[in-house]
Amino acid sequence: MSQPTTDPRPTLEAVAARAGVSRATVSRVVNGSTGVRKSLAERVRRAVEELGYVPNQAARSLVTRRHDAIAVVVAEPETRIFADPFFGLQLRGISKELAAHDSQLVLLLTEGPDDYARVGRYLAGGHVDGALAFSLHLDDALPGIVRATGVPTVFGGRPYWSDTRRDVPYVDCDNRGGARDAVRHLVALGRTRIAHITGPLDQTSAVDRLDGYREVLAGADPRLIEECDFTSAGGERAMRDLLDRCPDLDGVFAANDLSAAGALRVLRERGLRVPEDVAVVGFDDMLHVAEQTDPPLTTVRQDIEGMGRLMARLLLHGRDRGQPPGTVVREAPGAEPAPVVTQTTLVRRASA
Amino acid sequence: MSQPTTDPRPTLEAVAARAGVSRATVSRVVNGSTGVRKSLAERVRRAVEELGYVPNQAARSLVTRRHDAIAVVVAEPETRIFADPFFGLQLRGISKELAAHDSQLVLLLTEGPDDYARVGRYLAGGHVDGALAFSLHLDDALPGIVRATGVPTVFGGRPYWSDTRRDVPYVDCDNRGGARDAVRHLVALGRTRIAHITGPLDQTSAVDRLDGYREVLAGADPRLIEECDFTSAGGERAMRDLLDRCPDLDGVFAANDLSAAGALRVLRERGLRVPEDVAVVGFDDMLHVAEQTDPPLTTVRQDIEGMGRLMARLLLHGRDRGQPPGTVVREAPGAEPAPVVTQTTLVRRASA
Repeated sequence: MSQPTTDPRPTLEAVAARAGVSRATVSRVVNGSTGVRKSLAERVRRAVEELGYVPNQAARSLVTRRHDAIAVVVAEPETRIFADPFFGLQLRGISKELAAHDSQLVLLLTEGPDDYARVGRYLAGGHVDGALAFSLHLDDALPGIVRATGVPTVFGGRPYWSDTRRDVPYVDCDNRGGARDAVRHLVALGRTRIAHITGPLDQTSAVDRLDGYREVLAGADPRLIEECDFTSAGGERAMRDLLDRCPDLDGVFAANDLSAAGALRVLRERGLRVPEDVAVVGFDDMLHVAEQTDPPLTTVRQDIEGMGRLMARLLLHGRDRGQPPGTVVREAPGAEPAPVVTQTTLVRRASA
Repeated sequence: MSQPTTDPRPTLEAVAARAGVSRATVSRVVNGSTGVRKSLAERVRRAVEELGYVPNQAARSLVTRRHDAIAVVVAEPETRIFADPFFGLQLRGISKELAAHDSQLVLLLTEGPDDYARVGRYLAGGHVDGALAFSLHLDDALPGIVRATGVPTVFGGRPYWSDTRRDVPYVDCDNRGGARDAVRHLVALGRTRIAHITGPLDQTSAVDRLDGYREVLAGADPRLIEECDFTSAGGERAMRDLLDRCPDLDGVFAANDLSAAGALRVLRERGLRVPEDVAVVGFDDMLHVAEQTDPPLTTVRQDIEGMGRLMARLLLHGRDRGQPPGTVVREAPGAEPAPVVTQTTLVRRASA
């Protein structure tokens, strides 16, 4: 919509006219080429300053192929991103790290999968140096679209295809180990009927946490497992179903803090005391959630903001070496390997 | 970092070779030019499909100057955007409207004013067709930076310079009228010592709401006015200061729901009953906040999501006419005029 006639920006031609040089000379100076006589270059720089000329970066980036911008793509609709504090925390880490490298964070929001083709066009359109993609789901078209653009990408959370392709750079926490810690803690408290409220099982984080639960409780009663969706409303529903089915349960491991918060509300509603009657452990340690529940939540801490920083660092490290991130990072001595899996820790509060 | 050697995308040259035509012909077909023989065009399209060629949009957009993407710039640090549900709601409206027009929402996050120059470079860099900017503050460099890029922009909230320049397109609600309704409601309830917890007075929305309060209560005791910052922690602090200073107050108009929620907590803490001892009215009607407070909050409703949609519509309307939005919209019969000021309504719940 910036028609030439209404565009208030001075043009390259105007700079050339003011400096009394050719367009090509202006272009060379603006793009930092050498081989322009010093006095000419000085005249161009003065004209640029006088006119307030902003180089057309679309043109310049065709030459340099660098934009100092990184896209973030979350495979969730905009509504979910702003409702679940996990995403805000992850973005906080990414934002801090990119700002420290003077790279612009470009968050590409969508209404849902119908919009993924457009995200792919933007990524392929030469607007960013790389992408960070997270909250991937099985059977989700987005990872394929992102990869087809050829834009270097680091994933948040282990992509489900990383088992067969070892060169996929991603950052994740030790979901399985964290889940084992949670369940072992409930076992150590003497609980014998420990239920699990899962996350959405089309995400590897949820599957890995379920695997951790099963590793500790091999042969557990399958009626103690209820699939859920990482939301607090889902946690309420799951807790109700579990209590209806197994009224004798005495422990709950919820796959995230939001669903644990929902479970706590239902336990109170049913007149059950936490932790006396039912001990509850969450996963995430999101302070706004885990410290605010009644009682405060014992949970498995993952450093969500730190993982955001690591994702950004992994991607920028690749860019600054001029190569795709996965390859480079392994070659660089002392750098984090790709993939990066971070440790979790159990944080004890009052609920278990 | 996409080095030519590692770039998996097929090139224009590859398409030309496969189709047996010149690069110029491929370029013309891909960019939708007429004047290419039908059989040649068909061959090019087949080659594009077979190779999975994605046109270099950086190059194409130099010709078409259109990106099908709109930037959103919020003059708040990333942390604030994810902590205050106002922004999520505004973005929801923007996202829905842009998706309906197949335009990509590009949210440019920052850590703070130090990052604004970089935002300006991205906007000027030919990556978007226009910008939506909101949460502006007085003495804020961002609006100037955005305007200097020449990118067509619609503002959310009345910019403080719009008094002297009538051609600034923006969307706002009737802040002053809404504030008058809130205070008149408290007066009608028989309250005689009505305090006001303001928003940050470097924002026009906060200034306009204070003006509305003053219009109804001309000559009000200035000790009943406490400056605050639109946060719930700020609302707690302001309520404590007001009660220490004026223990006889019997009504509170808070400039937004978050600060009203903080005020309600302090009133309960001090053993004051709401609404019996102190009646409280907020502003915004953010359902997650206003329905959850104890007691539920009487508040001035503004349609935050709807205002987001209007901002996007105003900007796209300009783009689709190939002219800056401000001018065009006034010429179009039946379209919203620019600026657009929406009505507010008082929503009665239990707090007043």
